[in-house]
Amino acid sequence: MKKLIEKIIQTKNPTVVGLDPTLDYIPQYLKQKYFEEYGYTLKGAAKAYYAFNKKIINAICDIVPAVKPQCAYYEALGWQGMKTLAKTIQYARSKGMYVITDGKRNDIGSTMQAYATAHLGQISVDGVQTPAFGADALTVNGYLGTDGISPLLSVMNEDQGIFVLVKTSNPSSGELQDQKIGENSVYAVMGDMCEKWGEGSIDPYGYSQVGAVVGATYPQQLGELRRRLPHTFFLVPGYGAQGGGAKDVAGAFDENGLGGIVNSSRAILTAWKKEGSDGVDFAETARREALRMKEDIISVIAPIKG
Amino acid sequence: MKKLIEKIIQTKNPTVVGLDPTLDYIPQYLKQKYFEEYGYTLKGAAKAYYAFNKKIINAICDIVPAVKPQCAYYEALGWQGMKTLAKTIQYARSKGMYVITDGKRNDIGSTMQAYATAHLGQISVDGVQTPAFGADALTVNGYLGTDGISPLLSVMNEDQGIFVLVKTSNPSSGELQDQKIGENSVYAVMGDMCEKWGEGSIDPYGYSQVGAVVGATYPQQLGELRRRLPHTFFLVPGYGAQGGGAKDVAGAFDENGLGGIVNSSRAILTAWKKEGSDGVDFAETARREALRMKEDIISVIAPIKG
Repeated sequence: MKKLIEKIIQTKNPTVVGLDPTLDYIPQYLKQKYFEEYGYTLKGAAKAYYAFNKKIINAICDIVPAVKPQCAYYEALGWQGMKTLAKTIQYARSKGMYVITDGKRNDIGSTMQAYATAHLGQISVDGVQTPAFGADALTVNGYLGTDGISPLLSVMNEDQGIFVLVKTSNPSSGELQDQKIGENSVYAVMGDMCEKWGEGSIDPYGYSQVGAVVGATYPQQLGELRRRLPHTFFLVPGYGAQGGGAKDVAGAFDENGLGGIVNSSRAILTAWKKEGSDGVDFAETARREALRMKEDIISVIAPIKG
Repeated sequence: MKKLIEKIIQTKNPTVVGLDPTLDYIPQYLKQKYFEEYGYTLKGAAKAYYAFNKKIINAICDIVPAVKPQCAYYEALGWQGMKTLAKTIQYARSKGMYVITDGKRNDIGSTMQAYATAHLGQISVDGVQTPAFGADALTVNGYLGTDGISPLLSVMNEDQGIFVLVKTSNPSSGELQDQKIGENSVYAVMGDMCEKWGEGSIDPYGYSQVGAVVGATYPQQLGELRRRLPHTFFLVPGYGAQGGGAKDVAGAFDENGLGGIVNSSRAILTAWKKEGSDGVDFAETARREALRMKEDIISVIAPIKG
């Protein structure tokens, strides 16, 4: 996680902005432009998403270390949406941001290798190496065990990482994840596997390339997992719209203010609505909300230092 | 699973062909045509995948009820690959085949709703309903619990289905899935959740819209799960290249020869290599291998009847 941690130290900001666009989040004036040009089509919507994302990225790239585009919202627009996903990842990286593709991908062997290639590597087109999506990190689901993770480890370079679902932020996450295997819960067993998978890749900050997704909505488990998994960096969803506050995420961090990055999507992307504006200033309101979130979180953690 | 089961009864064939293309599977003469036109690019490769898939579908659509395109191989070609995925799904459905998109998607709430929309529903582009990928069924991962499944149930029409990962075919599947929660293994707990999620949608054949993925490589667990989950239809990977044989999959079926559909990908797509040909007849060899597989499997199960 070295590259991500260095961006966090540089911006003094342990947060990531989720780029989860929906048509409802995009101000009328902006989407209308693309509907007039391309009709009410997947292409028109995908072009509007990209224009929206670019303005958000421009507004936050100097103060926020990372963005996290959520694949599902792009897939819902078909291949046109996936083109916007690829362009968004490239644009954010060109502005110096660390990009975590939130795909929760999972499979085995050569199939998982194909996902690793798609999102973190390059495919060989009869010898010509070509990137497909090219992010810095990918979220994955570890239900299939080591066969689903090792293909990622073999594709990643030292600047890349993965985040494995451990304890998710949703109300029903406990149906499986809180069940007990002997004395341990399923999420703890999954967390222990993250520590094992990360063994060979621990950076100077003490964290491996294998991170974990742990929700802000379960602060007790977050603290428990921080102590249990000392080398596992946490991606923390559930702050803001899902109900988690700054105090709830504090447990993700270590004594250097590191160890976690907190995501917010809706509250930032739709800040213009809350301010009652017509959306012309949506990027500026997103920046203000991103700064507010940063201040909120750094107020409850140790000072960030490398 | 009514629509799928009717196709199985009509073809007397409980198998599905996995459309998992790689450049290595495509005969030289076919891919060369597209590389000459589009260069050694993602677009050239994606065009070659589509031409390959179309010929396979043409060769098997009268004898095989379903195809299962694996998202990962299309994603590895970026948005151009996703365009081929969408076109492949549409083409297979136009030839009367049932299409299971193998995406193992998983998330929660509005994000899972976006995946459901992408693969099984239609997105509203400011009021204009538009399908993105439009398959009959989707594979999903249930690690996040009910919040990850209910958005699918609300999007599906009565002809559509999902298959939840229960006991996967890979060697390391047991690392989590075989662990014991009280007296039950994790995979049994996940299977029980499938029965619960399917309660409201049981068809005249006795199966619900919520199926399960159970690997051919664990025949004992397959039989155990068949008895435990009487309303859950099984998608069975692991036959052929992964080592499972006809006897290993027999346990997936009920006394009417129903209850499961067995996947084969590599053995069918690369049958031309095994026959030592130059690949000009790859579609005919795929058909022969599909027929061989059908005979192999129906020889060990009860006669298929509706």
